[in-house]
Amino acid sequence: MSVGIVEEKSVTFDTELRLESGRILGPITLAYETYGELNAARSNAILVTHAWTGSAHLAGRYSAEEQKPGWWNEIVGPGKLLDTERYFIICSNVVGSCFGSTGPASVNPKSGKRYNLSFPVITVRDMVRAQRLLIDHLGIERLFCVMGGSMGGMQALEWATQFPDRIASAIVLATTPRPSAQAISLNAVARWAIFNDPTWKKGEYRKNPKDGLALARGIGHITFLSDESMTAKFGRRFSARDGQFDFFGRFEVERYLSYNGYNFVDRFDANSFLYLAKALDLYDVAWGYESLEEAFARVEVPIQFFAFTSDWLYPPAQTEEMVAALERLAKPVDYHLIASAYGHDAFLLEHETFTPMVRDFLDKVNRLTG
Amino acid sequence: MSVGIVEEKSVTFDTELRLESGRILGPITLAYETYGELNAARSNAILVTHAWTGSAHLAGRYSAEEQKPGWWNEIVGPGKLLDTERYFIICSNVVGSCFGSTGPASVNPKSGKRYNLSFPVITVRDMVRAQRLLIDHLGIERLFCVMGGSMGGMQALEWATQFPDRIASAIVLATTPRPSAQAISLNAVARWAIFNDPTWKKGEYRKNPKDGLALARGIGHITFLSDESMTAKFGRRFSARDGQFDFFGRFEVERYLSYNGYNFVDRFDANSFLYLAKALDLYDVAWGYESLEEAFARVEVPIQFFAFTSDWLYPPAQTEEMVAALERLAKPVDYHLIASAYGHDAFLLEHETFTPMVRDFLDKVNRLTG
Repeated sequence: MSVGIVEEKSVTFDTELRLESGRILGPITLAYETYGELNAARSNAILVTHAWTGSAHLAGRYSAEEQKPGWWNEIVGPGKLLDTERYFIICSNVVGSCFGSTGPASVNPKSGKRYNLSFPVITVRDMVRAQRLLIDHLGIERLFCVMGGSMGGMQALEWATQFPDRIASAIVLATTPRPSAQAISLNAVARWAIFNDPTWKKGEYRKNPKDGLALARGIGHITFLSDESMTAKFGRRFSARDGQFDFFGRFEVERYLSYNGYNFVDRFDANSFLYLAKALDLYDVAWGYESLEEAFARVEVPIQFFAFTSDWLYPPAQTEEMVAALERLAKPVDYHLIASAYGHDAFLLEHETFTPMVRDFLDKVNRLTG
Repeated sequence: MSVGIVEEKSVTFDTELRLESGRILGPITLAYETYGELNAARSNAILVTHAWTGSAHLAGRYSAEEQKPGWWNEIVGPGKLLDTERYFIICSNVVGSCFGSTGPASVNPKSGKRYNLSFPVITVRDMVRAQRLLIDHLGIERLFCVMGGSMGGMQALEWATQFPDRIASAIVLATTPRPSAQAISLNAVARWAIFNDPTWKKGEYRKNPKDGLALARGIGHITFLSDESMTAKFGRRFSARDGQFDFFGRFEVERYLSYNGYNFVDRFDANSFLYLAKALDLYDVAWGYESLEEAFARVEVPIQFFAFTSDWLYPPAQTEEMVAALERLAKPVDYHLIASAYGHDAFLLEHETFTPMVRDFLDKVNRLTG
């Protein structure tokens, strides 16, 4: 069952947040949505954290006319994995994004103009600091769980290491303790594509720089898929409209990347894309610590990890490095390697592969905390 | 020992070549170099075929001042793997390239203007048809061997399947029978980077479109390396000149890709890059046949294959598919999977890993043909 018609909420904090960079950001607005009811003990809240281009719109529809439901609708609702009859589900748009939270496209109240590149570089740790303001605002002392994939998983890791007393568990999917040189490179060329677009104007555009952003998304898209899934879906099929020997003739996979890239331009701000790409690349769970172990020594609650065999952006070995570190520290950790052809995006596309394990894990956390 | 000072040669064929596309190209000029001496029996010629951005300048230097020798100098020379005291080595620049052979930057004698996008789409099979004109011109009935990696390996495969009576053996490194959907995608975004550059002007530029071509090269570069080699060389090191929280601050790997990308602009024509990218993507050794087996049924000579474990552009499984097909046909085939961290570029960077096997293979071919 669906959570039905939902509404986006918003809260503005008048506090100034000191960022990892040392710079100050404030006031901060966060867009968020909630589903289900907070229980009297305020102990049933699950925070779901979104990936790079996600939003607070996790589940349900804003109106009966909205074509697509929220981005993880399949697992959030009455009787679903994140059962809204049992849990109070929260999702908030991260700082730096463009779906209602403060980001580079927001107006800086001090200048009356859009931040654009005067927006400070933010980190995943900063995103989580802002989220904590929201959790305080909602009057929740301790989240039952923080769950997310990719950049959402990084946020879950930050909750577990930076605010260990504020959560009872974490679920981390398709994530890395720190992106590798290759992952950084692929984001680097995506950034470069936007920088190359003359309509980007060092961030001072009126209209999204479409060719650069579409290409940047196209590059990103490749990293979210796998050769196996692309081969299954497109293979080497040539576009039926084009001649194979036309200079501009395209393979089907090429058309698909272009079509999706240009669609993306209508819904995502180029500067936000750049700021979040940078946050991803800078991410290191051990940032400010001597080692992964030192960072993970702070963890106090069970963490469940999922990696996906065909994820070449954040390959399973990188998750396994975290699992091994936690095991050396005798921390409660649960790990599942899921066989999947869907690459990095598997966490969004194949929820049925991890649903039973997540359900068991949440039941176990319930027994531990109950 | 080096082959020493060498000179580039050039030959123009007044014939018109009917291309795979059905279009006609002519006259055709090919730049080429040779090293060593053709023996009286004309039986000691080895054709070395180059990859995407290679040239006829395989070995030696044009003058004592030339900083770098030819692109595979390490294996060509007196006493080297391709021993110029024993073999007559030939390398020619492919049709469509920009190093002296007819390509989109050449002047079309019919119009007196550069071809640019009026140049026909060419295939690897077309490149080999043009090479055959050169081999005829040199008076060689039968090449002792054709050897190449990547697009060079595709050319060797075309010689083995299209002109089986004109060769005595072939050596194919880091190649694929046909690039996968992911490999096509990565070339697609590289093309897109050039198309996005307003100075490209649909190919009618006076100066190479530098930002687009540099980015296209940057994307390509990532596919030639591996996560392992990038991690070893750069890891997550941040440029010492930049602040980690500067918006334009860069990781070392990012600077490296940019630096090499912009260097590339000085030496490679953007339209050639596009035409050759297309030739790579269109490549299918079974083009015009029902199956790989039907194409390989034409092979009459021993083929030696090398794949490299960390090559994710043309992964070993794709080479193994060819080896298996040849084995099913009971054709003489020799296959080596080389453990390497260097990705696709391993064939250029780690010649010592395959030198002993190539030497044995050539000796065996000598015994067979001798």
